Amino acid sequence: MRCNTQAMPQQDDKERHSPLSEHDLIARYFRPLADGVPGAIGLLDDAASFSIGSDEELVVTTDALVAGVHFFADDLAADIAWKALAVNVSDLAAKAACPLAYSLALALPRSVDEEWLKEFAQGLDAAQTAFGIGLSGGDTTVSPDGPLTLSVTAFGTVPNQRMVRRNGAKAGDTLYVTGTIGDSALGLKLRTGGSDASSWPLDEAQRQFLLNRYLRPAPPVTLRAALLAHASAAMDVSDGLAIDASRMCSASGLGARIDASAVPVSQPALQLIKAEIIGLDTLLTGGDDYEILAAIPLAAEAAFRSDAAAANIPIARIGQFFQDNELKVLDKKGKPLRLNSLGYDHFRR
Amino acid sequence: MRCNTQAMPQQDDKERHSPLSEHDLIARYFRPLADGVPGAIGLLDDAASFSIGSDEELVVTTDALVAGVHFFADDLAADIAWKALAVNVSDLAAKAACPLAYSLALALPRSVDEEWLKEFAQGLDAAQTAFGIGLSGGDTTVSPDGPLTLSVTAFGTVPNQRMVRRNGAKAGDTLYVTGTIGDSALGLKLRTGGSDASSWPLDEAQRQFLLNRYLRPAPPVTLRAALLAHASAAMDVSDGLAIDASRMCSASGLGARIDASAVPVSQPALQLIKAEIIGLDTLLTGGDDYEILAAIPLAAEAAFRSDAAAANIPIARIGQFFQDNELKVLDKKGKPLRLNSLGYDHFRR
Repeated sequence: MRCNTQAMPQQDDKERHSPLSEHDLIARYFRPLADGVPGAIGLLDDAASFSIGSDEELVVTTDALVAGVHFFADDLAADIAWKALAVNVSDLAAKAACPLAYSLALALPRSVDEEWLKEFAQGLDAAQTAFGIGLSGGDTTVSPDGPLTLSVTAFGTVPNQRMVRRNGAKAGDTLYVTGTIGDSALGLKLRTGGSDASSWPLDEAQRQFLLNRYLRPAPPVTLRAALLAHASAAMDVSDGLAIDASRMCSASGLGARIDASAVPVSQPALQLIKAEIIGLDTLLTGGDDYEILAAIPLAAEAAFRSDAAAANIPIARIGQFFQDNELKVLDKKGKPLRLNSLGYDHFRR
Repeated sequence: MRCNTQAMPQQDDKERHSPLSEHDLIARYFRPLADGVPGAIGLLDDAASFSIGSDEELVVTTDALVAGVHFFADDLAADIAWKALAVNVSDLAAKAACPLAYSLALALPRSVDEEWLKEFAQGLDAAQTAFGIGLSGGDTTVSPDGPLTLSVTAFGTVPNQRMVRRNGAKAGDTLYVTGTIGDSALGLKLRTGGSDASSWPLDEAQRQFLLNRYLRPAPPVTLRAALLAHASAAMDVSDGLAIDASRMCSASGLGARIDASAVPVSQPALQLIKAEIIGLDTLLTGGDDYEILAAIPLAAEAAFRSDAAAANIPIARIGQFFQDNELKVLDKKGKPLRLNSLGYDHFRR
């Protein structure tokens, strides 16, 4: 792939900002991230090549992030890098896939300098270590006036025919979720710095916790074996617990009841609820959680709980699937909770 | 992955332009492109899954395209789609990989409407049919003020350990190239419509031919078996014949002599050379050719020529590799041709 030189005279002054050739840029900042990745060939060829076991299949997922849409252009480069990888690993984790490698396409605005690239690579490196995945290839190009746009395609493996689908839930299955829900939505409110959020009665550590949940999501990758063994369906929570649960329902041709009071919330979030600053609906529809929703057959519940505990992943039973087509989120008294929307749709808002 | 609702109030008026939800948009325009693609699951899950034969390995390549850089924002949607897929299939073809599927990440500006999406999907469909590849997944998001940015990750298969690398050339190997070189660079000049190009002594069919070579590159996918059987190294010509040949040289630790007069040029290009309107150097350094450069051992030359003919791919012997580290492009008299640059570097220009 190449650029239209003639079409972009504005690139002529690029040299002043970034004297690196594409070759040098890749060698300096990205090649170290491909160290030891089988088939990456040190990013020296036009393609990577993977072998997978004959009893395995490849799981592939793609997520793109655009500055000003999925993150703020002035977020730390290391945080942007972490998030781009985390949101993709989140899909692998929910499919019970073992992370293998990822490909990164990067469209860099002129304003990006070497310091930014260095920190970006450090963020990728930290995320790679956390998630057990390595860089296998990609493409680096310019988008002169921005926005910075990243696209990651992540690869993982599962035993043949064993990818955990979102359409496999059965009536009677219980609905589980990992971690805590809604922290990231609160972290985003803190990040945007509206006057409301700045006056929240939280201490600095609590603020940092929520911000970090937004900036550095950490999908529960170690739940893989438990999902593979016991889940009839799973997906990650990215657009909001309510909308993602409704998607699992409609993919599986089922309905579900969710007990809102059973949805796990963090201590800072609980504190804001108790102070009546936010409602539970903010947490259930906020999105960016990167936790996992899983349908677990009743008979497998005990084993799933035990395997999740062994993997050190907190899980909570929040509901059950039914033969109808309705998703109901119920409060403590069994009354349907009023939600303004179920969650986020990229195109409708 | 989700968007930061709070961070982009400008999306509120998006509804007027594109009342489709992301779900509907995918169902209407992209799901048909995944019809019959194994593991794509009708784009209904968070990931795709592929099985490959136990005697095969997966080849993966990524190329990103940005409006105003790699194509013009007002190019036809169908042409943009074709090119995004073609430049990726070009890498698969050069690695002797059999196309399997591709993942598409699309960041759409607000200005894109349903008509554009419909034509874009038609362009993808045409390219899929031409190259024998199908859509397996991806991500569709908004980049409100543009530019339109696309990233494709394409997957193919080769027999285990048989991906044709760019570093495998040996001293004495001959250098071959497919098709004709430089047409796309001329097509780009016609596309930008400078006064020079508009006065070129070409008829309408010749202009269309060159433009089409720029807008709708057609990598020689059927050369796969011939490359697999005979090539010691290969890569696609994307940044310019001269620079790409120099990259094959340095990856292989060799030098090469290229006989400029042996480089195949089209009839319209030849006509412009004869009229002394362009020089051969324009063609050799222009880029965007999406042809294949291959190193062929002397002993395999006859068989390679015969297999290429059987695949209906025109090839030309343009040079040979030597033990030194110098790439020389020589004219008819054996004198080094003066080239202003070898080709295109995304970051240096």
